[in-house]
This record gives sequence, C-alpha cells and structure tokens, in this order.
Amino acid sequence: MEFSSKLIEKAVNEIAQLPGIGKRTALRLVLHLLKQPKEQTGFLAQALTTMREDIKYCENCHNISDNAVCEICSNKNRNHQVVCVVEDIRDVMAIENTGQFRGVYHVLGGKISPIDGVGPSQLKIATLVEKVKEGKISEVIFALSSTMEGDTTNFYIYKQIADAAIIISTIARGIAVGDELEYADEVTLGRSILQRVPFEKSFKSN
Amino acid sequence: MEFSSKLIEKAVNEIAQLPGIGKRTALRLVLHLLKQPKEQTGFLAQALTTMREDIKYCENCHNISDNAVCEICSNKNRNHQVVCVVEDIRDVMAIENTGQFRGVYHVLGGKISPIDGVGPSQLKIATLVEKVKEGKISEVIFALSSTMEGDTTNFYIYKQIADAAIIISTIARGIAVGDELEYADEVTLGRSILQRVPFEKSFKSN
Ligand SMILES: [Zn+2]
Ligand SMILES: [Zn+2]
Repeated sequence: MEFSSKLIEKAVNEIAQLPGIGKRTALRLVLHLLKQPKEQTGFLAQALTTMREDIKYCENCHNISDNAVCEICSNKNRNHQVVCVVEDIRDVMAIENTGQFRGVYHVLGGKISPIDGVGPSQLKIATLVEKVKEGKISEVIFALSSTMEGDTTNFYIYKQIADAAIIISTIARGIAVGDELEYADEVTLGRSILQRVPFEKSFKSN
Repeated sequence: MEFSSKLIEKAVNEIAQLPGIGKRTALRLVLHLLKQPKEQTGFLAQALTTMREDIKYCENCHNISDNAVCEICSNKNRNHQVVCVVEDIRDVMAIENTGQFRGVYHVLGGKISPIDGVGPSQLKIATLVEKVKEGKISEVIFALSSTMEGDTTNFYIYKQIADAAIIISTIARGIAVGDELEYADEVTLGRSILQRVPFEKSFKSN
C-alpha cells in the first residue's frame, strides 16, 4: 500500500499491528476518525494511554482492578476457600455473568502455549500453588478453555497441587471441545460450573 | 458488559465507537495491548493524535496530503485537463495502483447519502464545478462506487456541468453493481478506466 501522506501511513501501520486488523481495515478506521471531530480521536488516544499506564492487577487474584484488591476478593460474602482458575478477565466476566459462582478467582494471565512462546513462568501459577500450600483453599476449579493449551495448563498446575488435601475439579465439559470459554452461552457455562467433576475423571477416558 | 476496572471500561467504550468494532473485539484489543510493552500503546495513541491534528488536504484536489499541493497535482507529467472524480483517498490509491491513469483527481470526501446525513454541501462539489467553469478541464471521469449513493452523486454533479464543452464519462461498469470500488481487482479497475463511457450512456437503458 502506497500512501499520499506519512501521517496516514504511520497511523495505519500502528493500528494494523493489532491482532485481526489488516491495513485495509486500519485505513477505513483512520478515514472514519478524520470525519469525526478531533476530540473523538483525542478521547480514544487518551483512554488507551491512561489505561495502559495506570492499569493495576489485584494483588490476590491478579485480575485487572482499579484497586489493590479487587471487588470480588474484598467481598466477605463470597467463599474464599473455593478458587476458580481462569485465563483472563474475560472469563471472570463470563462466569460472573452466570450468577452461579460464589467463590473467588485466580487469573493466570494466559495459557501455556509453546507456539506463542508462553511458558509457565510467564503465568501466575506460583502464587496459586502457594495459596494451596498455605492451606487456605478447600477447592480449586479449573475453568480454562478446553483446548490443548488449556489442558496442558490444567495438568501442569494439577501436578503441583495433587498432593494437597483439597478438591480439584474442572468445569463440566458441556462446552464443546475446542471452543473458547468466553463465547459459551450463560446457561451452558453456569451448568458447567455447577456440574464440575473431579479433575482425575476429566482426563481419564473411563 | 460489566467491567472490574473503569480504565478498561473507558478504553473499550472508546474503541467500540469505531465502525465494525463491537465491545467484545474492543476488549480483545485492549487485552492484547496490555500484554505488549507500554511503548506500543504510546506509539499507537501518538500516531492517531498527530494524524488527526496535523492532517492536511491538497488545496487543489482535496486528497489527503502532507503538503499544500499533493504529489499528483504538482506532477507536471500528468494531464491536468483530465479529472477523475472519486470519493476518498482509498479510491485514489486503488486507481494509482492500476498504473492506467495519467490525469489528476478530484476527491469529494464522500457520497451524497441522505440516510447518513451527507448532503451535497458537505462534499467538495462546488470547487469541481468551478474548475470546469474556468475552462481548464477537458474531461471529467466519474469513478464513484456504483451504488445508489454513487449514482445520485454523479447525477447531482452532472446536472451542474452538463452544459460545459467537455467530455463527461464514467468508468466502465466492469465492476459489479453494488460493489465498493476499493475492493475491485487491479485488472478490472484498470480496464474500467480505459473503457470509460459517455455519462449519458451510463444511465440510459438503451
Ligand atoms: Zn482479586
Ligand atoms: Zn492534489
């Protein structure tokens, strides 16, 4: 693509670095912004910068939060002994939306994925194992997407906490294998939390 | 969607104002930026702001340009008597890419579209009519997308310049009716410029 303006070219190239957005789409977005008042671009740029600079993570569950401890972790009406392990904030939002879960979360920040260069040390796994070893947890529920990366991550964590005297479960596989958790409908996802099964059962074929 | 962070919520809402981007996609983009170094978000925000603040338009053809007069308008090897009328910069890029056109452009900045609230006065039509009346143009080629809005715009302009002693043509309709110009392949688009037909023929059925 050859542009008649370096300003356009630079903006398009920056936008096209976002996943799933090609240069053609980026140019369409730029032309849209040019038709809107300058303020809209200003607000967008400011919201992105502030978000990236000031973002905080809950020191307990690692979910994105504007406070040191998130609202879920600081809610005394929730069961802090039951910990649901998820990939990111989208899964927390999806499960909260079902209204079926009254425990707390542990947000890993991703899944183990050698192809994407994501190893266990880049995820918040150590703090989860620590919480379990401190004896404050009665149940760990794995709620990662049922993909190869999700299964690998589950199993990697499982090996480190299998000795603890706790229940280790996974959400019921009502969700189609290979599907991303966040796209599940509320009813299916809610039921899969209620019908969670012991982790050992989830990888044994019989 | 309920967010655990106002910062995330604000960024998502700003991104989701862009056309074709929903809140789910916006959240995915935000989470991607959070996994990248802070600088990437900074560069993106800066490129958008600078682009929107400093953008200039060629005073002759109204195409986006970093100079007062764009490279095409200041190129003496091009035929300044043949003017191709297009909607926006994407169409200029698409036609330049064919290598078939040696005239210059006139960029309207949109199409007449009552549904989208775009009337003739919001488009750069008056300066085109003026150029024609000054007698500096020998041919006007309409190269708008062959949609209802494109046809309406063509006809609106045609009525104002039909009396002038110039050729008024449209690009050949090798492009499927209803298709956007920018998605045409180079060969089809190049041929449609070479095989342009008198405007009167383009709307008469026989
Ligand atoms: Zn928390
Ligand atoms: Zn120009």
